[in-house]
Amino acid sequence: MNIKQLSKTQLEELYSKESAILEEYKKKGLKLDMSRGKPSPEQLDLSNDMLTHCLDGDHISETGVDCRNYGVLDGIYEAKRLFMPMMGVGRYEIIIGGNSSLQLMYDTIARAMLLGVKGSPKPWSKCERVKWLCPAPGYDRHFAICQAFGIEMITVPMLSDGPDMDMVERLVSEDGDIKGIWCVPRYANPTGVVYSDEVVRRFANLSPKAPDFRIYWDDAYCVHDLTDERAEILNILEECKKTGKQDMPVIFASTSKISFPGGGIAAIGASEENIEFMKQQMSFQIIGYDKLNQLRHARFFKDFNGILEHMKKHRAILKPKFDLVVSTLDRELSDLGIGSWSNPKGGYFVSFDGLNGTAKRIVALCKDVGVKLTEAGAAFPYGVDPRDSNIRIAPSYPSLEELEAAINIFCTAAKVAACEVLLGK
Amino acid sequence: MNIKQLSKTQLEELYSKESAILEEYKKKGLKLDMSRGKPSPEQLDLSNDMLTHCLDGDHISETGVDCRNYGVLDGIYEAKRLFMPMMGVGRYEIIIGGNSSLQLMYDTIARAMLLGVKGSPKPWSKCERVKWLCPAPGYDRHFAICQAFGIEMITVPMLSDGPDMDMVERLVSEDGDIKGIWCVPRYANPTGVVYSDEVVRRFANLSPKAPDFRIYWDDAYCVHDLTDERAEILNILEECKKTGKQDMPVIFASTSKISFPGGGIAAIGASEENIEFMKQQMSFQIIGYDKLNQLRHARFFKDFNGILEHMKKHRAILKPKFDLVVSTLDRELSDLGIGSWSNPKGGYFVSFDGLNGTAKRIVALCKDVGVKLTEAGAAFPYGVDPRDSNIRIAPSYPSLEELEAAINIFCTAAKVAACEVLLGK
Repeated sequence: MNIKQLSKTQLEELYSKESAILEEYKKKGLKLDMSRGKPSPEQLDLSNDMLTHCLDGDHISETGVDCRNYGVLDGIYEAKRLFMPMMGVGRYEIIIGGNSSLQLMYDTIARAMLLGVKGSPKPWSKCERVKWLCPAPGYDRHFAICQAFGIEMITVPMLSDGPDMDMVERLVSEDGDIKGIWCVPRYANPTGVVYSDEVVRRFANLSPKAPDFRIYWDDAYCVHDLTDERAEILNILEECKKTGKQDMPVIFASTSKISFPGGGIAAIGASEENIEFMKQQMSFQIIGYDKLNQLRHARFFKDFNGILEHMKKHRAILKPKFDLVVSTLDRELSDLGIGSWSNPKGGYFVSFDGLNGTAKRIVALCKDVGVKLTEAGAAFPYGVDPRDSNIRIAPSYPSLEELEAAINIFCTAAKVAACEVLLGK
Repeated sequence: MNIKQLSKTQLEELYSKESAILEEYKKKGLKLDMSRGKPSPEQLDLSNDMLTHCLDGDHISETGVDCRNYGVLDGIYEAKRLFMPMMGVGRYEIIIGGNSSLQLMYDTIARAMLLGVKGSPKPWSKCERVKWLCPAPGYDRHFAICQAFGIEMITVPMLSDGPDMDMVERLVSEDGDIKGIWCVPRYANPTGVVYSDEVVRRFANLSPKAPDFRIYWDDAYCVHDLTDERAEILNILEECKKTGKQDMPVIFASTSKISFPGGGIAAIGASEENIEFMKQQMSFQIIGYDKLNQLRHARFFKDFNGILEHMKKHRAILKPKFDLVVSTLDRELSDLGIGSWSNPKGGYFVSFDGLNGTAKRIVALCKDVGVKLTEAGAAFPYGVDPRDSNIRIAPSYPSLEELEAAINIFCTAAKVAACEVLLGK
C-alpha cells in the first residue's frame, strides 16, 4: 500500500518499527561508503599488470619518441589511438593529458577565464558577467568549477533523453553572457540518462548569442556499459562539423574508471583549430604530460577493442552491485510508493528521488548509522536541490556484502524520513 | 692578443679563416642541439629500474593508501619525505604534484590571478595592473608565464650572489602593483649563480607594499651539483619564519632532472597556512595527482640520501660535458677577449656573454651549420637582451663527441660575429 494512504496510526507503527531497525544497525558500528563513484580494489586489480611489464627496457614510442624525456605536449600517437575511437575524434583533434580529466576541464575553463577561447572578444574574466547552463541533477564537481570562478549557474532540467533543449536553445540564443554548458552525454552523472540523437543534433544546431559559447562534453562513461548493449550516441564533433560549428564542442574522457582512478590518463578532443589554439595556450603551462604512463596504457590495452574487452571485466564486477541496489529499492520502497530511482544501463550511479523534503534527512540518518552518502543537493548548482529529494547512490566501492547492509539501511532511512514528513515530525 | 687590438687587416684575415671553417662544417650536414636543459638518454637510463619492479603487486603506501585509487590531494607521505629535506620544508608544508614543476608554477600564478593568494584583497586579474620582478638573465619559461597573463615584467640585474637586492628592496616597498619575483636560488638558470646567505636574508626581510606579494623560489637545481661540494643555501622558509613573513615564499622543485623529465614528480613547499589555502583552491581542479608515480619514486630512491647518491651518477656523466664546453671556450676565446662565460658548479647551463650586438648573429650562424642554440635574448623578459650579448649553452643532451663539434662551431661563430661587429659588416 502506498505510504500516503496509510492512516496516522499505521504511519506511527511503521515509523517505530523502522526507527528501531536503524537503532539496531547503529549498535554495529558500521563504516560503509556509497558516496563517490570510486572503483573497488577488485576492479583496480584488473589492470595491475600494466604497472610491471609494459615498459621493460623499451621507452620509445612508435614514432621514435623517448617517453622518458621532455616534449610532445599533445601526447604520443599510440595513446591518442586508444582514445580516438572512444571519443570519436581524429589524430589532430586530441590532446592526451595527465591522470585527471577534472584537471583538464578546470584548466580549460581557467584558460578561458584568463586568456579566452578561440574567437573570444576578450578573456571571460574581463566580462562583466559569465553565466553557465547546468543540466541538473548533474555532476557536483562540474558545478564546483563554476562556483570557484564566480560563474553564475542556471539550472536546466534533465529530461529522459538529455537536457531540456527547448530551454537550452532559448537561453543561449537570448543571453550573450552564457558561455558554456556542462554535459555528460552518456550514462549521465547521476541519472544514467543517455542523450538521444535528437538532443545531440539540437546541440549541434545551437545558435548562441555569445560568439565564444562552448559545449563541455564530458564523456566520462563512454565505455562504461552495464549491459551487453553499447550505448551509442551521435558524434557531437561530427554533427557540429555538419552545421559548421565544429569549434563549439570540447570533449573530455579518461581511463580513470578503466585503468586506475589515481594513475590513468585523460584526454581533450575538439576541432583541429581548437586543439591548435589550446596547445598554444597550454605551452606556457607544461612541456608535456607523463608520456611513460601514456605508453604503459597503450601497450597494456593495445587498442580500443582491448579497452572494450577490459570493460567487460569491470562490468562483471559492477553489474551485481547495481542489481542489488535496484532490486532492494524495488523490494523495500516500491509498494510503499516512496520515491523513484533509476535503473541505469551504464555509468556509476543510481539516482534516487525520495519524497520531497526527505533527502537531507535520509543522508543524515544514514550517516548516523555509519553509512556515508553523497551530500543531499550535491547534484544541483550551489548544492541546493529545490525539492530536497535527490540522492546519488554510488554502489561501486563497497563489497557486495557491505553494499547489502548499506542499501538496506538506506531503505530503512528512506521509510523513516517519509514517515516523519507525512507525520509532520 | 685581444681581438679589439687587431688591425683591420688582421681582423679581415681572422674573419676569412673562421668563415671558411664554418663553411666546411656546413657541408657535414650536422644536427646538434645545445638549446634546452635536457638530460641525455644515458642519464635517463640511471632510473630505468624504477619503471619495472617498484610496484610489483603492492600499491599500498606506508599510511595505507591504495595509490591506484582516487584521493590524497597533497600526495603520499613517503613521496613527501623525499622532498622535505631537499626543499627544507616539513610534512604539512608540502604538496606533491604531477610530472611538471612548470605546471605547478603556472597553476599557482593562474590561481592567484583568478582567485587570489592568501591575504589578497582581490584576485590579481581584478587589479588594474600586476607587475613582477624578473632577475635577468633568467629562465625563459618563468618570463613566458608572466607574458601569457599580461603581467608587466621589470628586469632586475643578476649579480654574482643573486639579484640586485638594493633594487628589489626599493621596488617592492614602493610599488604595490608588484606581486611577485622569480628566483632560481641555486645554480640559477642560466648563470649558475648561488644566492648568498645575505641575499636570502634580505629576501626574508622584504617589506612589500603589496600585502599579497610572493617570492617564487624555483629550487630546480637543488641537488644538481657538478662538484663534490654541495651548494648549501639558507632555508628561505625558515628565514621568513624568523621575520614573521612565512607566507611570502612559495618553493618549487621536481625530479625532472633526477629521474625522468617526462615522468618525474614535482612539489610545492610553503608555510602550513599557505599550503592549506592552496589545497582548498586546488580541490576544485584535481582530486589527486598520480600517486602510483609518487610511490614508484619513493621506493626507488628510498630517501633523500638515495637521491644524493643517484645525483653522483648524473654528475659523472655531466661533468665532462661542462668541462669540455668551458675548456673549449677558454682555449678558443680567452686570448682574443671575445666575451666571458660562467664555469658553473652546478645546474644545467653555461651562460655566455659575447661582444655586444653579437648574440643573435652567433645563434643564426650556428643554426646555419646545424647547431641549435636557445634563441638569443631568451633569458630576458620579453625575449629582449638589451645588449644582445647573452647566450645560454646547454651541454647536457649531446654526446661528448657531438658536443665537441658543437662547441667548436660555437666558438668559430663567436669569432666570425665578433669580426663582423668590429669591421662594421
